[in-house]
Amino acid sequence: MYQSDYYTQDIHGPYDLYDVGDFVLEEGMTIRGLQLAYHTQGELNAAKDNAILICTWYCGTTKFYEQYYIGKGRALDPDKYFIIVVNQIGNGLSTSPHNTQGAGGMAAFPHVRISDDVRAQHKMVTEKWGIKKLALVAGGSMGSEQTWEWAVRYPEMVQRAAPIAGTAVTTPQCAAFSRTLDEARTSDPNFNGGNYKTNHDVEIGLRREAALWTVFGFSPEWLKQEKWRALGFSSIEDFQVNFMDACFTPMDPLDLQNNAWKWQRADVSRNTNGDLAAALGRIKAKVFVMPIATDHLFPVADCAAEQKLTPNSELRVIDSLAGHLGLFGFDGKAYFDQLDKHLGELLATRG
Amino acid sequence: MYQSDYYTQDIHGPYDLYDVGDFVLEEGMTIRGLQLAYHTQGELNAAKDNAILICTWYCGTTKFYEQYYIGKGRALDPDKYFIIVVNQIGNGLSTSPHNTQGAGGMAAFPHVRISDDVRAQHKMVTEKWGIKKLALVAGGSMGSEQTWEWAVRYPEMVQRAAPIAGTAVTTPQCAAFSRTLDEARTSDPNFNGGNYKTNHDVEIGLRREAALWTVFGFSPEWLKQEKWRALGFSSIEDFQVNFMDACFTPMDPLDLQNNAWKWQRADVSRNTNGDLAAALGRIKAKVFVMPIATDHLFPVADCAAEQKLTPNSELRVIDSLAGHLGLFGFDGKAYFDQLDKHLGELLATRG
Repeated sequence: MYQSDYYTQDIHGPYDLYDVGDFVLEEGMTIRGLQLAYHTQGELNAAKDNAILICTWYCGTTKFYEQYYIGKGRALDPDKYFIIVVNQIGNGLSTSPHNTQGAGGMAAFPHVRISDDVRAQHKMVTEKWGIKKLALVAGGSMGSEQTWEWAVRYPEMVQRAAPIAGTAVTTPQCAAFSRTLDEARTSDPNFNGGNYKTNHDVEIGLRREAALWTVFGFSPEWLKQEKWRALGFSSIEDFQVNFMDACFTPMDPLDLQNNAWKWQRADVSRNTNGDLAAALGRIKAKVFVMPIATDHLFPVADCAAEQKLTPNSELRVIDSLAGHLGLFGFDGKAYFDQLDKHLGELLATRG
Repeated sequence: MYQSDYYTQDIHGPYDLYDVGDFVLEEGMTIRGLQLAYHTQGELNAAKDNAILICTWYCGTTKFYEQYYIGKGRALDPDKYFIIVVNQIGNGLSTSPHNTQGAGGMAAFPHVRISDDVRAQHKMVTEKWGIKKLALVAGGSMGSEQTWEWAVRYPEMVQRAAPIAGTAVTTPQCAAFSRTLDEARTSDPNFNGGNYKTNHDVEIGLRREAALWTVFGFSPEWLKQEKWRALGFSSIEDFQVNFMDACFTPMDPLDLQNNAWKWQRADVSRNTNGDLAAALGRIKAKVFVMPIATDHLFPVADCAAEQKLTPNSELRVIDSLAGHLGLFGFDGKAYFDQLDKHLGELLATRG
């Protein structure tokens, strides 16, 4: 454990911590005193039927959603909805390798699965607020994987679901990409099997990870058209160092590792002995499957195949040149307008 | 310099060496006694108008083309054509970092550009055989980059050109990917700034490079459908270790580095002060631009954009699920049938 200068209330807050208690993970280990970092906007109504849950992506925190996905007059409107944004286990704010004291912290922190997150979130949502129905569960990338798991695992509870730029089952290529990120980090000699003092020791490995994200996270066309110029960068090297490296170097390597392990193994068919059609067939929510058109990590074809297996669903492709990292709204208003349109229409359905 | 157990006549031969002599590179250094490794099939006719030149890809050698791209009764038919297959500088068979003696070898080996290769090949083709016209220049990936350079630099000489799965200008994403390969290799502590004894010292770095190729070289769909099973592998890990790692670990890290530097900088518009339209406008060859449908490194869109700027050209997309590494014919007969069809039709044109 160490005191990070990044995973702080100043940078990612305000957020609260929900004490899930001792939590037995699917892989058999127990996290003692599991805490979920979350934040809410809006008010839960008397009928408790206006709650929305938003789940985070790989190494992301709730702050980004709060700044860019939620707002008065938008689809995710805190004037209408009680919006709970929750940080996944291991993301640096919720219980994570770097912030866990004692023998079970850092490199000994246990493997966590998407289903663990969803079970812990379920406990929070039901026990803390007594919510019995969620008007919507949504999230991008790994948040999408949590969204799918929610819809499959708690079909009576999830009225609507919006998996954005993510699949219900991590594909082999996506998992292989994620493993190259692990390799990039752990090959830094200063990673030292996870026995480092702070993330700053592993800066070389973290920069190596950031470089892989540049190659794989954006579409070829976005890079070719030098769209990073609009963000104020003078060259791709400038963008790499002062944006991508700046994003990744403050993060904790073991937290990333924990999220990556989870990402590599997302699979809703674990609920149905490997039968994906049966898993998705369980879903009662109205589902808008929302891939990004140029996403190479979670390609439209993979998302469309899952959508076809989902009873009450529609495919809503988001037109964006930015590739997977279009999730960050690099296309600006055009991206968020589409997001709001689709989410607004989804929320207007009976669910 | 060291004696490689991989870059040998046994494995890659038979091949001959052409002595280009002392060769001044575009970046200003001289390779003394530059040798191009090449092999020919078929006979040069009396009119010397039946010669075809085939150029190699990144870390590839002529052997693969000879085994899989050329054959009696096929488009590249040695009964009809005099087929010269030539190894690019730095590929391990032609003069390369690992096989260069003295102070200018290994890590001190100079940077080489695509245009250097093409100038050296031109010298060989004209001086050794007195060839004035090439019926066809073709090649995949970096071989495509050489093909484009040939067509732009020697427009009177190249009658037909078939750039396969490659562009005339390396795109930013493609260059960024190539840099991650460099980083994967050089981050192995045993790479030691290039001061290693043999490639075997750098096996960890080479395996890291091989893992990146798996992620980026194949299409998501090819991996998802587990097409590697047809090649006799039992899992993606088995495929990684016993195919991809087996491909890359015998190679020389500095040879790869040399090819990668060249790849990152391919740009025919260097012939025309950065004006790509002017460069491609120079071409007199009949050109079939042949991207692979699922290629993420040299996407169809980029190839099509260059084709549009090329006067006497057609876009011939090769339908293959395998992504860029479809070049290796992972789709089997279906791939080679398309290749032969397009090349056959190209060779049947007046050029």
